[in-house]
Amino acid sequence: MADLRRPAIILHTPQLGENIGAAARVMLNFGLADLRLVAPRDGWPSASAEAMSAGALGQGVQVSVFDTLEAAMAGLTYTIATTARPRGMEKPVFDAPGAVAAVRGGAGLAGILFGGEKSGLPNEAVALCDAVLTYPVSPAFASLNLAQAVGVFCHQWGAAAGLGGRFEGKEEGVGAPAPREDLIGMFEHFEAELDRAGYFYPPEKTPVIINNLRNALIRANWTTQEVRTFRGAIKALALGRGKARVKREE
Amino acid sequence: MADLRRPAIILHTPQLGENIGAAARVMLNFGLADLRLVAPRDGWPSASAEAMSAGALGQGVQVSVFDTLEAAMAGLTYTIATTARPRGMEKPVFDAPGAVAAVRGGAGLAGILFGGEKSGLPNEAVALCDAVLTYPVSPAFASLNLAQAVGVFCHQWGAAAGLGGRFEGKEEGVGAPAPREDLIGMFEHFEAELDRAGYFYPPEKTPVIINNLRNALIRANWTTQEVRTFRGAIKALALGRGKARVKREE
Repeated sequence: MADLRRPAIILHTPQLGENIGAAARVMLNFGLADLRLVAPRDGWPSASAEAMSAGALGQGVQVSVFDTLEAAMAGLTYTIATTARPRGMEKPVFDAPGAVAAVRGGAGLAGILFGGEKSGLPNEAVALCDAVLTYPVSPAFASLNLAQAVGVFCHQWGAAAGLGGRFEGKEEGVGAPAPREDLIGMFEHFEAELDRAGYFYPPEKTPVIINNLRNALIRANWTTQEVRTFRGAIKALALGRGKARVKREE
Repeated sequence: MADLRRPAIILHTPQLGENIGAAARVMLNFGLADLRLVAPRDGWPSASAEAMSAGALGQGVQVSVFDTLEAAMAGLTYTIATTARPRGMEKPVFDAPGAVAAVRGGAGLAGILFGGEKSGLPNEAVALCDAVLTYPVSPAFASLNLAQAVGVFCHQWGAAAGLGGRFEGKEEGVGAPAPREDLIGMFEHFEAELDRAGYFYPPEKTPVIINNLRNALIRANWTTQEVRTFRGAIKALALGRGKARVKREE
Protein backbone atom coordinates (compact mmCIF):
# COMPACT_ATOMS: atom_id res chain seq x y z
CA MET A 1 0.00 0.00 0.00
CA ALA A 2 1.25 3.44 -0.85
CA ASP A 3 2.48 5.54 2.03
CA LEU A 4 0.15 8.52 1.98
CA ARG A 5 2.73 10.69 3.68
CA ARG A 6 5.11 10.48 0.72
CA PRO A 7 6.28 14.03 0.18
CA ALA A 8 6.62 15.89 -3.09
CA ILE A 9 10.10 16.92 -4.23
CA ILE A 10 10.16 20.45 -5.62
CA LEU A 11 13.08 21.66 -7.72
CA HIS A 12 13.20 25.44 -7.88
CA THR A 13 14.48 26.73 -11.24
CA PRO A 14 16.64 23.70 -11.99
CA GLN A 15 19.05 24.17 -14.88
CA LEU A 16 20.36 20.82 -16.08
CA GLY A 17 18.09 18.10 -17.36
CA GLU A 18 20.71 15.62 -16.16
CA ASN A 19 20.15 16.68 -12.58
CA ILE A 20 16.38 16.52 -12.92
CA GLY A 21 16.66 13.01 -14.32
CA ALA A 22 19.11 11.92 -11.63
CA ALA A 23 16.78 13.34 -8.99
CA ALA A 24 13.86 11.39 -10.46
CA ARG A 25 15.92 8.21 -10.44
CA VAL A 26 16.93 8.47 -6.82
CA MET A 27 13.38 9.46 -5.82
CA LEU A 28 12.02 6.25 -7.29
CA ASN A 29 14.91 4.25 -5.79
CA PHE A 30 13.58 5.24 -2.40
CA GLY A 31 9.89 5.18 -3.14
CA LEU A 32 9.03 8.80 -3.94
CA ALA A 33 7.09 9.74 -7.04
CA ASP A 34 5.79 13.35 -6.99
CA LEU A 35 8.34 15.62 -8.70
CA ARG A 36 7.44 19.29 -9.19
CA LEU A 37 9.55 21.61 -11.29
CA VAL A 38 9.42 25.37 -10.93
CA ALA A 39 10.45 27.09 -14.14
CA PRO A 40 13.06 24.61 -15.39
CA ARG A 41 15.58 26.63 -17.41
CA ASP A 42 15.60 24.39 -20.45
CA GLY A 43 11.91 23.61 -20.50
CA TRP A 44 10.14 20.31 -20.25
CA PRO A 45 10.18 17.50 -21.33
CA SER A 46 13.93 17.04 -21.46
CA ALA A 47 15.82 14.35 -23.32
CA SER A 48 18.78 14.55 -20.96
CA ALA A 49 16.51 14.18 -17.95
CA GLU A 50 14.90 11.18 -19.59
CA ALA A 51 18.28 9.56 -20.19
CA MET A 52 19.61 10.17 -16.68
CA SER A 53 16.43 8.95 -15.02
CA ALA A 54 17.21 5.36 -16.03
CA GLY A 55 13.54 4.82 -16.66
CA ALA A 56 12.23 6.46 -13.49
CA LEU A 57 10.40 9.13 -15.49
CA GLY A 58 8.50 6.44 -17.32
CA GLN A 59 8.12 4.01 -14.45
CA GLY A 60 6.50 5.89 -11.66
CA VAL A 61 7.77 9.41 -11.10
CA GLN A 62 5.11 11.94 -12.04
CA VAL A 63 6.49 15.30 -13.12
CA SER A 64 4.49 18.51 -13.02
CA VAL A 65 5.80 21.87 -14.14
CA PHE A 66 4.87 25.27 -12.71
CA ASP A 67 5.70 28.87 -13.45
CA THR A 68 5.99 29.87 -9.82
CA LEU A 69 6.86 28.28 -6.50
CA GLU A 70 3.50 29.38 -5.14
CA ALA A 71 1.73 27.37 -7.82
CA ALA A 72 3.97 24.36 -7.20
CA MET A 73 3.01 24.39 -3.53
CA ALA A 74 -0.70 23.96 -4.28
CA GLY A 75 -2.13 21.14 -2.19
CA LEU A 76 0.83 20.98 0.17
CA THR A 77 0.35 21.72 3.84
CA TYR A 78 3.97 21.74 4.97
CA THR A 79 7.15 22.55 3.08
CA ILE A 80 10.79 22.28 4.03
CA ALA A 81 13.48 24.31 2.27
CA THR A 82 16.80 22.57 1.74
CA THR A 83 19.56 25.08 2.16
CA ALA A 84 22.98 25.30 3.70
CA ARG A 85 22.29 28.80 4.82
CA PRO A 86 19.50 29.45 7.28
CA ARG A 87 19.30 33.18 6.77
CA GLY A 88 18.47 34.20 10.28
CA MET A 89 14.87 33.16 9.80
CA GLU A 90 13.46 31.63 12.91
CA LYS A 91 12.34 28.34 11.45
CA PRO A 92 12.99 24.86 12.72
CA VAL A 93 16.27 23.59 11.27
CA PHE A 94 16.27 19.87 10.60
CA ASP A 95 18.90 17.36 9.67
CA ALA A 96 17.76 14.65 7.26
CA PRO A 97 16.31 12.30 9.89
CA GLY A 98 14.57 15.24 11.54
CA ALA A 99 13.02 16.36 8.26
CA VAL A 100 11.73 12.87 7.54
CA ALA A 101 10.31 12.64 11.05
CA ALA A 102 8.56 15.98 10.59
CA VAL A 103 7.05 14.85 7.28
CA ARG A 104 5.94 11.50 8.63
CA GLY A 105 4.55 13.01 11.80
CA GLY A 106 2.58 15.73 10.07
CA ALA A 107 -0.90 15.72 8.64
CA GLY A 108 -1.49 16.41 4.98
CA LEU A 109 1.02 16.45 2.17
CA ALA A 110 4.54 17.80 2.54
CA GLY A 111 7.01 19.12 0.01
CA ILE A 112 10.79 19.25 0.14
CA LEU A 113 12.19 22.19 -1.77
CA PHE A 114 15.61 22.27 -3.45
CA GLY A 115 17.24 25.27 -5.08
CA GLY A 116 18.67 25.42 -8.58
CA GLU A 117 22.29 24.58 -9.38
CA LYS A 118 23.59 28.08 -9.66
CA SER A 119 22.41 30.00 -6.68
CA GLY A 120 20.32 27.76 -4.48
CA LEU A 121 17.10 29.03 -2.99
CA PRO A 122 16.31 32.74 -2.90
CA ASN A 123 15.20 34.19 0.43
CA GLU A 124 11.66 34.58 -0.86
CA ALA A 125 11.42 30.85 -1.49
CA VAL A 126 12.74 29.96 1.96
CA ALA A 127 10.28 32.42 3.50
CA LEU A 128 7.41 30.40 2.02
CA CYS A 129 8.58 27.27 3.83
CA ASP A 130 7.81 26.06 7.33
CA ALA A 131 11.22 24.68 8.12
CA VAL A 132 14.76 24.27 6.86
CA LEU A 133 16.69 21.10 6.05
CA THR A 134 20.47 21.35 6.10
CA TYR A 135 23.18 18.78 5.58
CA PRO A 136 26.36 18.38 7.60
CA VAL A 137 28.65 19.44 4.79
CA SER A 138 32.28 20.37 5.06
CA PRO A 139 32.47 24.16 5.36
CA ALA A 140 35.41 24.22 2.98
CA PHE A 141 33.51 22.46 0.19
CA ALA A 142 29.85 22.92 0.91
CA SER A 143 28.20 22.99 -2.50
CA LEU A 144 26.30 19.78 -3.02
CA ASN A 145 25.17 18.60 -6.44
CA LEU A 146 21.40 19.10 -6.78
CA ALA A 147 20.60 15.44 -7.39
CA GLN A 148 22.86 14.39 -4.51
CA ALA A 149 20.98 16.75 -2.22
CA VAL A 150 17.71 15.16 -3.33
CA GLY A 151 19.26 11.70 -2.92
CA VAL A 152 20.28 12.23 0.68
CA PHE A 153 16.73 13.13 1.65
CA CYS A 154 15.28 10.28 -0.38
CA HIS A 155 17.57 7.73 1.25
CA GLN A 156 16.49 8.97 4.64
CA TRP A 157 12.89 8.64 3.56
CA GLY A 158 13.44 5.09 2.40
CA ALA A 159 15.18 4.19 5.65
CA ALA A 160 12.32 5.54 7.72
CA ALA A 161 9.70 4.00 5.48
CA GLY A 162 11.33 0.61 5.94
CA LEU A 163 11.49 -0.18 2.25
CA GLY A 164 11.95 -3.84 1.52
CA GLY A 165 15.00 -3.61 -0.70
CA ARG A 166 17.47 -3.81 2.11
CA PHE A 167 17.13 -7.53 2.29
CA GLU A 168 16.28 -8.02 -1.33
CA GLY A 169 17.74 -11.18 -2.68
CA LYS A 170 18.79 -12.46 0.70
CA GLU A 171 18.69 -16.21 0.42
CA GLU A 172 16.99 -18.05 3.21
CA GLY A 173 18.44 -21.10 4.86
CA VAL A 174 21.90 -20.72 3.41
CA GLY A 175 23.41 -20.85 6.81
CA ALA A 176 21.98 -20.69 10.27
CA PRO A 177 24.44 -19.75 12.99
CA ALA A 178 26.16 -22.84 14.37
CA PRO A 179 25.10 -23.94 17.84
CA ARG A 180 27.88 -23.38 20.31
CA GLU A 181 28.41 -27.13 20.83
CA ASP A 182 29.16 -27.56 17.13
CA LEU A 183 31.73 -24.81 17.34
CA ILE A 184 33.35 -26.34 20.40
CA GLY A 185 33.37 -29.70 18.65
CA MET A 186 35.17 -28.06 15.74
CA PHE A 187 37.73 -26.43 18.04
CA GLU A 188 38.42 -29.72 19.77
CA HIS A 189 38.74 -31.57 16.50
CA PHE A 190 41.16 -28.92 15.23
CA GLU A 191 43.21 -28.94 18.41
CA ALA A 192 43.33 -32.73 18.57
CA GLU A 193 44.73 -32.89 15.06
CA LEU A 194 47.19 -30.11 15.79
CA ASP A 195 48.31 -32.00 18.86
CA ARG A 196 48.81 -35.19 16.84
CA ALA A 197 50.88 -33.15 14.39
CA GLY A 198 53.17 -31.93 17.17
CA TYR A 199 52.02 -28.35 16.82
CA PHE A 200 51.80 -27.54 20.55
CA TYR A 201 55.32 -26.88 21.65
CA PRO A 202 56.46 -26.19 24.30
CA PRO A 203 53.67 -28.06 26.09
CA GLU A 204 53.23 -25.50 28.90
CA LYS A 205 52.16 -22.91 26.32
CA THR A 206 49.41 -25.09 24.93
CA PRO A 207 46.54 -23.41 26.81
CA VAL A 208 47.65 -19.94 25.65
CA ILE A 209 47.99 -21.05 22.06
CA ILE A 210 44.58 -22.72 22.16
CA ASN A 211 43.00 -19.57 23.52
CA ASN A 212 44.61 -17.49 20.83
CA LEU A 213 43.30 -19.80 18.14
CA ARG A 214 39.82 -19.93 19.60
CA ASN A 215 39.66 -16.17 20.01
CA ALA A 216 40.53 -15.69 16.37
CA LEU A 217 38.27 -18.37 14.97
CA ILE A 218 35.24 -17.51 17.05
CA ARG A 219 35.04 -14.07 15.54
CA ALA A 220 33.98 -15.60 12.24
CA ASN A 221 30.41 -16.27 13.41
CA TRP A 222 30.34 -19.73 11.92
CA THR A 223 27.28 -21.30 10.40
CA THR A 224 26.50 -24.97 10.79
CA GLN A 225 27.50 -25.53 7.18
CA GLU A 226 30.78 -23.70 7.58
CA VAL A 227 31.64 -25.74 10.67
CA ARG A 228 31.04 -28.86 8.65
CA THR A 229 33.23 -27.55 5.83
CA PHE A 230 36.05 -26.60 8.17
CA ARG A 231 35.99 -29.96 9.91
CA GLY A 232 36.26 -31.56 6.49
CA ALA A 233 39.28 -29.38 5.82
CA ILE A 234 40.94 -30.40 9.07
CA LYS A 235 40.30 -34.04 8.28
CA ALA A 236 41.74 -33.69 4.80
CA LEU A 237 44.89 -32.02 6.10
CA ALA A 238 45.33 -34.69 8.76
CA LEU A 239 44.71 -37.55 6.39
CA GLY A 240 46.82 -35.99 3.67
CA ARG A 241 49.67 -35.55 6.10
CA GLY A 242 49.28 -39.18 7.11
CA LYS A 243 49.35 -40.23 3.49
CA ALA A 244 52.41 -38.18 2.79
CA ARG A 245 54.08 -39.73 5.77
CA VAL A 246 53.14 -43.17 4.59
CA LYS A 247 54.54 -42.36 1.21
CA ARG A 248 57.74 -40.99 2.63
CA GLU A 249 58.10 -44.09 4.78
CA GLU A 250 57.70 -46.38 1.85
CA MET B 1 42.32 18.16 13.02
CA ALA B 2 41.72 15.45 10.50
CA ASP B 3 39.59 12.55 11.63
CA LEU B 4 41.97 9.61 11.40
CA ARG B 5 39.11 7.19 10.99
CA ARG B 6 38.11 8.68 7.64
CA PRO B 7 37.55 5.69 5.38
CA ALA B 8 38.72 5.23 1.82
CA ILE B 9 36.10 5.00 -0.91
CA ILE B 10 36.90 2.26 -3.43
CA LEU B 11 35.19 2.17 -6.80
CA HIS B 12 35.44 -1.25 -8.43
CA THR B 13 35.74 -1.08 -12.23
CA PRO B 14 33.83 2.18 -12.59
CA GLN B 15 32.85 3.05 -16.14
CA LEU B 16 31.86 6.70 -16.42
CA GLY B 17 34.23 9.50 -15.54
CA GLU B 18 31.15 11.56 -14.66
CA ASN B 19 30.30 9.19 -11.85
CA ILE B 20 33.86 9.14 -10.56
CA GLY B 21 33.88 12.94 -10.53
CA ALA B 22 30.47 13.14 -8.86
CA ALA B 23 31.65 10.65 -6.24
CA ALA B 24 34.74 12.75 -5.57
CA ARG B 25 32.60 15.86 -5.19
CA VAL B 26 30.23 14.33 -2.65
CA MET B 27 33.14 12.77 -0.78
CA LEU B 28 34.70 16.16 -0.25
CA ASN B 29 31.30 17.68 0.60
CA PHE B 30 31.22 15.38 3.58
CA GLY B 31 34.89 15.41 4.48
CA LEU B 32 36.28 12.29 2.80
CA ALA B 33 39.40 12.42 0.66
CA ASP B 34 40.84 8.96 -0.14
CA LEU B 35 39.41 7.72 -3.45
CA ARG B 36 40.73 4.45 -4.87
CA LEU B 37 39.85 3.26 -8.34
CA VAL B 38 40.12 -0.36 -9.41
CA ALA B 39 40.62 -0.65 -13.16
CA PRO B 40 38.53 2.32 -14.31
CA ARG B 41 37.23 1.43 -17.77
CA ASP B 42 38.25 4.65 -19.47
CA GLY B 43 41.58 5.08 -17.73
CA TRP B 44 42.82 7.87 -15.57
CA PRO B 45 42.98 10.87 -15.43
CA SER B 46 39.56 11.66 -16.89
CA ALA B 47 38.39 15.01 -18.19
CA SER B 48 34.75 14.19 -17.50
CA ALA B 49 35.56 13.21 -13.93
CA GLU B 50 37.47 16.44 -13.53
CA ALA B 51 34.49 18.46 -14.77
CA MET B 52 31.92 16.70 -12.61
CA SER B 53 34.04 16.93 -9.48
CA ALA B 54 33.44 20.69 -9.29
CA GLY B 55 37.01 21.11 -8.12
CA ALA B 56 37.05 18.30 -5.57
CA LEU B 57 39.74 16.44 -7.52
CA GLY B 58 41.98 19.45 -7.25
CA GLN B 59 40.98 20.58 -3.79
CA GLY B 60 41.48 17.66 -1.52
CA VAL B 61 40.38 14.31 -2.88
CA GLN B 62 43.40 12.10 -3.54
CA VAL B 63 42.86 9.53 -6.27
CA SER B 64 44.90 6.35 -6.58
CA VAL B 65 44.44 3.77 -9.31
CA PHE B 66 44.98 0.02 -9.01
CA ASP B 67 44.81 -2.95 -11.32
CA THR B 68 43.17 -5.21 -8.78
CA LEU B 69 40.90 -4.92 -5.77
CA GLU B 70 43.47 -6.73 -3.67
CA ALA B 71 46.02 -4.01 -4.43
CA ALA B 72 43.47 -1.28 -3.71
CA MET B 73 42.87 -2.76 -0.27
CA ALA B 74 46.50 -2.40 0.78
CA GLY B 75 46.75 -0.69 4.13
CA LEU B 76 43.09 -1.17 4.98
CA THR B 77 42.08 -3.27 7.95
CA TYR B 78 38.34 -3.41 7.41
CA THR B 79 36.29 -3.18 4.26
CA ILE B 80 32.56 -2.98 3.67
CA ALA B 81 30.98 -3.97 0.36
CA THR B 82 28.02 -1.89 -0.78
CA THR B 83 25.56 -4.14 -2.50
CA ALA B 84 21.84 -4.64 -2.69
CA ARG B 85 22.30 -8.34 -2.80
CA PRO B 86 23.87 -10.13 0.15
CA ARG B 87 24.54 -13.38 -1.59
CA GLY B 88 23.98 -15.72 1.29
CA MET B 89 27.34 -14.85 2.76
CA GLU B 90 27.24 -14.71 6.48
CA LYS B 91 28.60 -11.22 6.95
CA PRO B 92 27.23 -8.44 9.06
CA VAL B 93 24.73 -6.45 7.00
CA PHE B 94 24.70 -2.76 7.85
CA ASP B 95 22.49 0.12 6.95
CA ALA B 96 24.28 3.43 6.40
CA PRO B 97 24.35 4.50 10.06
CA GLY B 98 25.50 1.02 11.03
CA ALA B 99 28.33 1.09 8.52
CA VAL B 100 29.51 4.47 9.75
CA ALA B 101 29.37 3.25 13.33
CA ALA B 102 31.42 0.19 12.40
CA VAL B 103 34.04 2.34 10.69
CA ARG B 104 34.23 4.84 13.52
CA GLY B 105 34.33 2.15 16.16
CA GLY B 106 37.04 0.12 14.50
CA ALA B 107 40.79 0.36 14.72
CA GLY B 108 42.87 1.04 11.64
CA LEU B 109 41.72 2.27 8.28
CA ALA B 110 38.49 1.19 6.66
CA GLY B 111 37.37 1.13 3.04
CA ILE B 112 33.88 1.26 1.57
CA LEU B 113 33.62 -0.61 -1.70
CA PHE B 114 31.20 0.23 -4.50
CA GLY B 115 30.62 -1.79 -7.67
CA GLY B 116 30.73 -0.50 -11.22
CA GLU B 117 27.69 0.88 -13.02
CA LYS B 118 26.92 -2.13 -15.09
CA SER B 119 26.95 -5.15 -12.85
CA GLY B 120 27.78 -4.06 -9.33
CA LEU B 121 30.21 -6.07 -7.27
CA PRO B 122 31.21 -9.59 -8.27
CA ASN B 123 30.97 -12.27 -5.58
CA GLU B 124 34.75 -12.44 -5.37
CA ALA B 125 34.91 -8.79 -4.40
CA VAL B 126 32.24 -9.15 -1.73
CA ALA B 127 34.05 -12.20 -0.36
CA LEU B 128 37.11 -10.02 0.31
CA CYS B 129 35.06 -7.71 2.53
CA ASP B 130 34.24 -7.96 6.19
CA ALA B 131 30.69 -6.70 6.00
CA VAL B 132 27.95 -5.55 3.67
CA LEU B 133 26.27 -2.16 3.40
CA THR B 134 22.83 -2.10 1.82
CA TYR B 135 20.36 0.69 1.27
CA PRO B 136 16.61 0.57 1.82
CA VAL B 137 15.76 0.84 -1.85
CA SER B 138 12.43 0.17 -3.45
CA PRO B 139 12.44 -3.43 -4.70
CA ALA B 140 10.73 -2.33 -7.90
CA PHE B 141 13.44 0.18 -8.79
CA ALA B 142 16.53 -0.81 -6.88
CA SER B 143 19.42 0.26 -9.09
CA LEU B 144 21.10 3.27 -7.54
CA ASN B 145 23.41 5.55 -9.50
CA LEU B 146 27.02 4.90 -8.43
CA ALA B 147 27.69 8.44 -7.24
CA GLN B 148 24.39 8.51 -5.37
CA ALA B 149 25.36 5.33 -3.58
CA VAL B 150 28.65 6.94 -2.59
CA GLY B 151 26.79 10.09 -1.57
CA VAL B 152 24.45 8.34 0.82
CA PHE B 153 27.37 6.85 2.73
CA CYS B 154 29.28 10.13 2.68
CA HIS B 155 26.32 12.07 4.08
CA GLN B 156 26.02 9.55 6.88
CA TRP B 157 29.72 9.95 7.55
CA GLY B 158 29.39 13.72 7.70
CA ALA B 159 26.41 13.48 10.03
CA ALA B 160 28.31 11.21 12.42
CA ALA B 161 31.48 13.26 12.18
CA GLY B 162 29.54 16.36 13.18
CA LEU B 163 30.80 18.49 10.34
CA GLY B 164 30.35 22.18 10.91
CA GLY B 165 28.50 23.07 7.75
CA ARG B 166 25.09 22.35 9.14
CA PHE B 167 24.94 25.69 10.82
CA GLU B 168 27.20 27.45 8.39
CA GLY B 169 26.13 31.00 7.84
CA LYS B 170 23.69 30.97 10.72
CA GLU B 171 23.54 34.52 11.93
CA GLU B 172 23.82 35.04 15.62
CA GLY B 173 21.54 37.30 17.61
CA VAL B 174 19.01 37.82 14.86
CA GLY B 175 16.24 36.82 17.13
CA ALA B 176 16.12 35.31 20.57
CA PRO B 177 12.86 33.62 21.46
CA ALA B 178 10.46 36.10 23.01
CA PRO B 179 9.87 35.77 26.74
CA ARG B 180 6.39 34.57 27.45
CA GLU B 181 5.36 37.89 29.02
CA ASP B 182 6.17 39.69 25.77
CA LEU B 183 4.00 37.25 23.88
CA ILE B 184 1.14 37.68 26.32
CA GLY B 185 1.53 41.43 26.06
CA MET B 186 1.25 41.10 22.31
CA PHE B 187 -1.86 38.94 22.57
CA GLU B 188 -3.51 41.42 24.93
CA HIS B 189 -2.61 44.34 22.71
CA PHE B 190 -4.04 42.55 19.69
CA GLU B 191 -7.20 41.55 21.50
CA ALA B 192 -7.74 45.03 22.95
CA GLU B 193 -7.56 46.55 19.49
CA LEU B 194 -9.85 43.86 18.07
CA ASP B 195 -12.30 44.61 20.85
CA ARG B 196 -12.21 48.33 20.10
CA ALA B 197 -12.87 47.49 16.45
CA GLY B 198 -15.99 45.52 17.36
CA TYR B 199 -14.47 42.21 16.27
CA PHE B 200 -15.75 40.11 19.18
CA TYR B 201 -19.31 39.31 18.38
CA PRO B 202 -21.39 37.81 19.86
CA PRO B 203 -19.78 38.70 23.21
CA GLU B 204 -20.31 35.27 24.81
CA LYS B 205 -18.05 33.72 22.17
CA THR B 206 -15.18 36.05 22.96
CA PRO B 207 -13.19 33.57 25.11
CA VAL B 208 -13.41 30.87 22.45
CA ILE B 209 -12.32 33.25 19.71
CA ILE B 210 -9.44 34.50 21.82
CA ASN B 211 -8.28 30.96 22.49
CA ASN B 212 -8.43 30.14 18.80
CA LEU B 213 -6.35 33.18 17.94
CA ARG B 214 -3.80 32.50 20.65
CA ASN B 215 -3.50 28.85 19.71
CA ALA B 216 -2.76 29.80 16.14
CA LEU B 217 -0.36 32.63 16.87
CA ILE B 218 1.61 30.85 19.56
CA ARG B 219 2.73 28.19 17.14
CA ALA B 220 4.91 30.75 15.38
CA ASN B 221 7.61 30.69 18.08
CA TRP B 222 7.96 34.45 18.11
CA THR B 223 11.22 36.22 18.66
CA THR B 224 11.42 39.42 20.66
CA GLN B 225 11.97 41.34 17.45
CA GLU B 226 8.99 39.73 15.75
CA VAL B 227 6.76 40.56 18.71
CA ARG B 228 7.85 44.16 18.40
CA THR B 229 7.15 44.13 14.66
CA PHE B 230 3.72 42.61 15.09
CA ARG B 231 2.74 45.09 17.79
CA GLY B 232 3.77 47.81 15.41
CA ALA B 233 1.50 46.29 12.80
CA ILE B 234 -1.42 46.15 15.21
CA LYS B 235 -0.84 49.77 16.12
CA ALA B 236 -0.67 50.82 12.48
CA LEU B 237 -3.91 49.04 11.67
CA ALA B 238 -5.64 50.53 14.67
CA LEU B 239 -4.38 54.03 13.96
CA GLY B 240 -5.04 53.73 10.26
CA ARG B 241 -8.56 52.64 10.93
CA GLY B 242 -8.96 55.61 13.24
CA LYS B 243 -7.68 57.92 10.53
CA ALA B 244 -10.01 56.42 7.96
CA ARG B 245 -12.86 56.89 10.32
CA VAL B 246 -11.83 60.46 10.99
CA LYS B 247 -11.67 61.03 7.29
CA ARG B 248 -15.04 59.48 6.69
CA GLU B 249 -16.43 61.62 9.45
CA GLU B 250 -15.05 64.77 7.96
